[in-house]
Amino acid sequence: MQQRAIITRQNIVNAASQVFVEHGFAAANIADVTSIAGITKGAMYFHFKSKEDLARAVIDEQQATYDALQAEMLGKDLSAFDTMIEISYGICALIKGNALFYASMRIAVELGVYGDPISKTYAEWGAPVAALVAQAIDDGDIRSTVDPEAFASFVISAFTGIQTVSMVYSNLEDLDGRIMAMWDILLPGMVTDKKRLELAEQTPRAIS
Amino acid sequence: MQQRAIITRQNIVNAASQVFVEHGFAAANIADVTSIAGITKGAMYFHFKSKEDLARAVIDEQQATYDALQAEMLGKDLSAFDTMIEISYGICALIKGNALFYASMRIAVELGVYGDPISKTYAEWGAPVAALVAQAIDDGDIRSTVDPEAFASFVISAFTGIQTVSMVYSNLEDLDGRIMAMWDILLPGMVTDKKRLELAEQTPRAIS
Repeated sequence: MQQRAIITRQNIVNAASQVFVEHGFAAANIADVTSIAGITKGAMYFHFKSKEDLARAVIDEQQATYDALQAEMLGKDLSAFDTMIEISYGICALIKGNALFYASMRIAVELGVYGDPISKTYAEWGAPVAALVAQAIDDGDIRSTVDPEAFASFVISAFTGIQTVSMVYSNLEDLDGRIMAMWDILLPGMVTDKKRLELAEQTPRAIS
Repeated sequence: MQQRAIITRQNIVNAASQVFVEHGFAAANIADVTSIAGITKGAMYFHFKSKEDLARAVIDEQQATYDALQAEMLGKDLSAFDTMIEISYGICALIKGNALFYASMRIAVELGVYGDPISKTYAEWGAPVAALVAQAIDDGDIRSTVDPEAFASFVISAFTGIQTVSMVYSNLEDLDGRIMAMWDILLPGMVTDKKRLELAEQTPRAIS
């Protein structure tokens, strides 16, 4: 694609994210997307043939953004445990910084209800978390009684719900605080005695 | 209200729940509600003047159903700890048994985005949980390091997310299993050593 076409396409995806955040999928109006993006119907049709195409593009870009965050965090050479925690706050920053994540969640919820394969997006989010938990168990930071897949599935659900509630209460202002509260509640039951002592030294309030 | 009017009103609220579950609030169509309820526009208007009125009625009835569950559980003379666990599974049964709960969540999410006071519904759900946790701390079942309000807020968020994800994956079929997995993850970090031993005897897999 030419540079201009790439910019237009990105512009459309950003506009679609805003519209999906506000209205969800079913009530979203393509005319609102073209209006926010400041483009003609023809330009829209050149890039996207349907609302489903737009939804897929939003979810794909959200996934690409998440993959980039994950790659960045894995490149920092932190422990698996610290990587897991850092990624959770990294996602908070991404969610607050652009509409892609909240839009993707709304779309996944709505289309999932109708059995669309887009609902598989939750599984894609869970696998890297399970891998980090398994590694943190090997590292002796998380207790071997924790089931990596079950934990990953739960924490993705919890994160989804926290995002929902934070949006309702504070328009995402309190998202980081709610994620911090989540770790305060989850970590005491998950970590090994060795890690518990380490955390108590680092962050007295994070674990008790 | 006369008996017939009460039945018609209930019929409308049930139909509205189904429509809100399928389409959310913004995309919900009043014509779909009258069609499912099998009533005229006039009968609808006698009971509800707007879609907002319908949403309020769905949320009020969800709240009344939840209050009845809570009263029933509190009447069983269980410990606060067991009441909290029982209520969580009781809610699963309610959610699977009628559309009111999922509809209420969808409405709360959508209207919350627009700053509607209906978003306060999350606070209404949290207060009874916080009271049970505080009592369970007094009873020596939950550790005094757990903050009842923070925990209640988290568990309501987690439950909301689990409901969302369970709807997407399994149309709520796996809801109970996901709530069981949540307690398996949460309880080890919450309970006192005394309670941990009790639970290990009762349900070997529930705690480790």
